[in-house]
Amino acid sequence: MHEITRRLVEFWRDDAKAEGMVPLHAPVFRGNEAAYVKDCIDTGWVSSVGAYVDRFEAMLAEATGVAHAVAVVNGTAALQVCLHLAGVRPGHEVVVPSLTFVATANAVSHCGAACRFIDVEERTLGLDPVRLDAHLTRHKDRPIKAVVVMHAFGQPADLDGLAEVCARHGVALVEDAAESLGSLYKGRHTGNHGLVASLSFNGNKIVTTGGGGAILTNDAALAKRAKHLTTTAKLPHPFRFDHDEVGWNYRLPNLNAALGCAQMEVLAEYVEHKRRLAERYDAAFAGLDGVRIFRETAEVRSNYWLTALLLDRPDRALIERVIEEASAVGIQCRPLWTPMHRLAMYGDCPRDALPVTESVADRLISLPSSPR
Amino acid sequence: MHEITRRLVEFWRDDAKAEGMVPLHAPVFRGNEAAYVKDCIDTGWVSSVGAYVDRFEAMLAEATGVAHAVAVVNGTAALQVCLHLAGVRPGHEVVVPSLTFVATANAVSHCGAACRFIDVEERTLGLDPVRLDAHLTRHKDRPIKAVVVMHAFGQPADLDGLAEVCARHGVALVEDAAESLGSLYKGRHTGNHGLVASLSFNGNKIVTTGGGGAILTNDAALAKRAKHLTTTAKLPHPFRFDHDEVGWNYRLPNLNAALGCAQMEVLAEYVEHKRRLAERYDAAFAGLDGVRIFRETAEVRSNYWLTALLLDRPDRALIERVIEEASAVGIQCRPLWTPMHRLAMYGDCPRDALPVTESVADRLISLPSSPR
Repeated sequence: MHEITRRLVEFWRDDAKAEGMVPLHAPVFRGNEAAYVKDCIDTGWVSSVGAYVDRFEAMLAEATGVAHAVAVVNGTAALQVCLHLAGVRPGHEVVVPSLTFVATANAVSHCGAACRFIDVEERTLGLDPVRLDAHLTRHKDRPIKAVVVMHAFGQPADLDGLAEVCARHGVALVEDAAESLGSLYKGRHTGNHGLVASLSFNGNKIVTTGGGGAILTNDAALAKRAKHLTTTAKLPHPFRFDHDEVGWNYRLPNLNAALGCAQMEVLAEYVEHKRRLAERYDAAFAGLDGVRIFRETAEVRSNYWLTALLLDRPDRALIERVIEEASAVGIQCRPLWTPMHRLAMYGDCPRDALPVTESVADRLISLPSSPR
Repeated sequence: MHEITRRLVEFWRDDAKAEGMVPLHAPVFRGNEAAYVKDCIDTGWVSSVGAYVDRFEAMLAEATGVAHAVAVVNGTAALQVCLHLAGVRPGHEVVVPSLTFVATANAVSHCGAACRFIDVEERTLGLDPVRLDAHLTRHKDRPIKAVVVMHAFGQPADLDGLAEVCARHGVALVEDAAESLGSLYKGRHTGNHGLVASLSFNGNKIVTTGGGGAILTNDAALAKRAKHLTTTAKLPHPFRFDHDEVGWNYRLPNLNAALGCAQMEVLAEYVEHKRRLAERYDAAFAGLDGVRIFRETAEVRSNYWLTALLLDRPDRALIERVIEEASAVGIQCRPLWTPMHRLAMYGDCPRDALPVTESVADRLISLPSSPR
């Protein structure tokens, strides 16, 4: 057993004994989840419209400080609509990190647009503003309509830097905040720094609605349009079925919003738990040569959605060995997502040099990080 | 008060008094809904994977006699993926009825394809095979890849006729069975007659998952592809994140599938209730000149999702008068959806003559039809 695995086993000894299994990330329901969901069933309000959807949206706006939140069916749908709101249409191009989950690139494809991959910074694992600036300058003749920054593992990217570059080039900045609910950049919640932002409430996120997402924006007109577009673009009328553009059926059911309301009540507690967990991991791996825990930069407060371990040097074999050794004793770890430019359907997309992405892809292990 | 309204008020007198309101269609949860949903929360299995998703899919296959069911996030997503499975890609064309809910046409748009509108038959309110045949013959040079038949109000269309025409022209037949779960055509459940079919479990459907849908097919390879495409096209592996094509995040959360399992347990009972309701409506409006209840054709068994009243002659003013009069006393009725060719975004789509659609649009009122 490698020393990394040994320390991991030591770290989780009591839990693994008690439950037989330490998942990478399992949701925790110890508040009002069952009560709110039962309320939906008792009242019959499980679907399109309902008080929990409104309340969930209000809680999201409150928690993030973004003026408007529109709840939708999942994070991919949220990002697709964000890009549509930013003017992305078939034939356009969108800059995204190659270091991300496939949903980021898929949302671009679902708009009929094409991805351009740019590298991330080692210190944030988020898009690199310097490389972005150079790329946008080099390709100013291309129809690049938006830049998507993804806050990997909950660590906010260099939002000031990226916002400045995007503003200078006249390209919309869109935040993929799927992993960063509860994360602050210079004291301000992620999702406030671009034109629009997307959230995810998938089962593996810090809080969950089963499946769900949201669109965040400080622009009232965009928020109204987001709601319209995600609810089949139906025109308000007591009974007529008129729709004025091609919309989506992307509304979040009230049943899922009810779960989300209960989860939002404990978000702050879960962030605290995850931050303490990252500290404990840091202590557990202290002094071990060649590895470190990925820690937040000075200007942010990360939600530490997943704590990640970083090797000093790429070693794919070691990463897979640790994951397999840990799995054998019931501890679930994961490698980084395969970078987008290595996937068959995105292999031909234009890309910048990606040295940090290439390196981190063979250096990172996600550690168990459930919020309890 | 018009005589139609008066008979409606008489019909619903006890209910309107007891509850103050008779909705067009409200879900009914009197079985295992609360227990199954609570089970998800107690076990933590609310999201992507879970036993209820598998069970719900098995129950759908069992109830419809279709070999494979793939649960997804809603009916629009289901139909979009059905069209994709039928080979519909950007630049292609798809024949759809103009008499349908906007989701049918939107699913075509979401594939990047364009709609062609064909008329329906008065006796079924479903696509007219004779007109379809003539249209496909006239436009055999066009890239028409699929025909979508929608079983309006649960009444199956002329599936033998449509299947024969589609086979002869080499165009895929896709069933939009959003409204026809529980409906049989010549003893066989809708969804069995084309290449693929879509279901919807929106809150207003005969059974609901809050929001949800499903893809049905008797082709094992298509079913496997449907599951792959709707779950981000991830390749099976213990821990690697590899995806081999642009997929969607369209899986149905386990929480919603749990609700669906409980609802499927009472589907047969709800169909019986709705069929009796249609008979009672028929009796209630018997002898009233100029109107009739829309009844099933001889070769089908309709689920009577919504009972519809048909005027003999178009009279938009009368339809809106009855809807408003009924609404004033708490009885919720609805007109037909605005036909697709009258909506701004579909007004320029190529279309056949639509005399039946034009006529029915100003002759139909949907009556309250909740399953209890």
